Amino acid sequence: MSGLFLPVPETRVLAIASHVVSGNVGNKIAVFTLQSLGCEVAALNTVQFSNHTGYKQWKGTRVSAQEITDLYDGLRQSYLNNFDMMLSGYIPGAPAVEAVGKIARDLKERALPRPGGFFWVLDPVMGDNGNLYVAPDVVPAYTKLIEHADLILPNQFEAELLSDVKINSMGSLAEAIGAMHDRYRIPHIVITSVSLEHPDHPVSSLSVVGSTRTSDGRARLFKIVFPAIDCYFSGTGDMFAALMVVRMREAVLEVPGLVEKPSWISDDSVPAIELPLARAAEKVLASMHEVLGKTCAAMAVEMEQARTTTLSAASTEEERAKMLHLLQSRASELRLVRNLESLRSPTVQFRATTM
Amino acid sequence: MSGLFLPVPETRVLAIASHVVSGNVGNKIAVFTLQSLGCEVAALNTVQFSNHTGYKQWKGTRVSAQEITDLYDGLRQSYLNNFDMMLSGYIPGAPAVEAVGKIARDLKERALPRPGGFFWVLDPVMGDNGNLYVAPDVVPAYTKLIEHADLILPNQFEAELLSDVKINSMGSLAEAIGAMHDRYRIPHIVITSVSLEHPDHPVSSLSVVGSTRTSDGRARLFKIVFPAIDCYFSGTGDMFAALMVVRMREAVLEVPGLVEKPSWISDDSVPAIELPLARAAEKVLASMHEVLGKTCAAMAVEMEQARTTTLSAASTEEERAKMLHLLQSRASELRLVRNLESLRSPTVQFRATTM
Repeated sequence: MSGLFLPVPETRVLAIASHVVSGNVGNKIAVFTLQSLGCEVAALNTVQFSNHTGYKQWKGTRVSAQEITDLYDGLRQSYLNNFDMMLSGYIPGAPAVEAVGKIARDLKERALPRPGGFFWVLDPVMGDNGNLYVAPDVVPAYTKLIEHADLILPNQFEAELLSDVKINSMGSLAEAIGAMHDRYRIPHIVITSVSLEHPDHPVSSLSVVGSTRTSDGRARLFKIVFPAIDCYFSGTGDMFAALMVVRMREAVLEVPGLVEKPSWISDDSVPAIELPLARAAEKVLASMHEVLGKTCAAMAVEMEQARTTTLSAASTEEERAKMLHLLQSRASELRLVRNLESLRSPTVQFRATTM
Repeated sequence: MSGLFLPVPETRVLAIASHVVSGNVGNKIAVFTLQSLGCEVAALNTVQFSNHTGYKQWKGTRVSAQEITDLYDGLRQSYLNNFDMMLSGYIPGAPAVEAVGKIARDLKERALPRPGGFFWVLDPVMGDNGNLYVAPDVVPAYTKLIEHADLILPNQFEAELLSDVKINSMGSLAEAIGAMHDRYRIPHIVITSVSLEHPDHPVSSLSVVGSTRTSDGRARLFKIVFPAIDCYFSGTGDMFAALMVVRMREAVLEVPGLVEKPSWISDDSVPAIELPLARAAEKVLASMHEVLGKTCAAMAVEMEQARTTTLSAASTEEERAKMLHLLQSRASELRLVRNLESLRSPTVQFRATTM
């Protein structure tokens, strides 16, 4: 387990996302995941909250757009902005989204003499399952940024917002991806956590669908189907994004010369299921499936204990319901730190197929 | 490298220290180190700066005492303050030091029904080499807190401030440790980075000196001598503290029943060099010696590169000197993430001896 076995050579990543004191979402997941896979991480925290908002109660503060800009200026003035990659997750409010966009554009400009020298993975955190959980003006702030990113990781709802295509079938999903390639000229797209019925998919399976565009802007679509785990989780999107940063670089480095091409776009001759993006997504899902399985098992044990101890102290039905929600939220935090092997060396079970 | 090989069982640690976006000091070191050794870490960041202050320029903000209190209240109201251990490092200003003291006292009280159920490692960050780098009122704020801690990790200068003993020999160092055991009834003390001449020590060696008090308050003194590495580093104290948290728990768990004794104080029959504190410090120094050696080697390579690229762009002597300082600061950041094996399984070379 020495440096020799790490998936990527030394890679400097700027990770911009939320920070929670307790639990695992946002940068709390990204920083550990990236570091465990050998990246040197600069962590710019966009909020400091006691815990994630799924608990329905939390304390802490957001960082302003000005402060995000200042922190980056601090890096720049001391030659600390020599990043190979950037990962952006939750950003509080439209001005802060714009500030992050400016940072990415500065880093991109800096890398102009070195094609492929900077790669931005953008997770456009806006909502899920039909609900927007950011202010409405965040949506246009994101749509203005997408063209500067190299890889975007919207979920199904966010893909609808970015493409203006209603997704209700694999056909409309493909249409949405095509629309995003067209509109933003975005090189790589992965839509995470797709739950759509399809003859090939067993009931209770999920899929991710991805594409790297060709030189003439066509999509190269693949999907990976995997079994859903019947547990509530938080932070799965953040974990997916962090792992994608490393696995994408790893897969690209396996193709001679590709890391020196703008946005790491494979030659047109490469079919969808042989894309580095597909290889990367397979490994990411393998890690996630292992960690989520272990989290689900540990959750059951923790809730059993909580039922006999803490919960028994509730005096009213209302108090008991609130307590139960809080304890369940705690129990469902991703089990990362003791499952390092699942991050580093997962067993790939689910393979990309053509659509 | 599965969970089976981790040094401690699942341990929930509250880490309160500074956060830097880029580089490794404070919580940036503590969180990764603790997580890598299998602890679930709640990270309460007392500042968010772009980089550490040794660069002589940085941007960012401090967190107020009120915000520290609020974040802890956020944890408490959602049953997230079930900590086994706490590590406190740099805290900006006396009111914030007091706020952290209140958190520790609350956690201690919570653990009263379970002796040994909470253990506070306090690094009283105040200064070094004769220079105070906090406001003068931080010193009395700390002296009021020490009695609530279980293990303190002052450097030589901080030990002078806490003991009111001028340390200029191994004799006066022992006196200072005795004075701290007496005055604060503090169970465990390690003075880090002692550089005092002594007939046993080769030139250019350093030592740490530690003690766990007996039931009647006497010191049990041990020292560990190790070769100095001729490089400038930052964050070594933070790394020492984070590793001590895990290694102390590991060593204590090797002694049947000790983890259930208040403050994990060994029986009076245990001699100094057989203390769990001594075992822990040996392992910590082993990890540090490996990481510092690798950092020093990497630093030389990085500076060589910087000399031929970035530095050649300087147009005046003054600009060149400033640039050199910044590049050296960057090059001297601890190399942690790619040296996980040195954190997890170091080879112990330097053993504790009696004084």
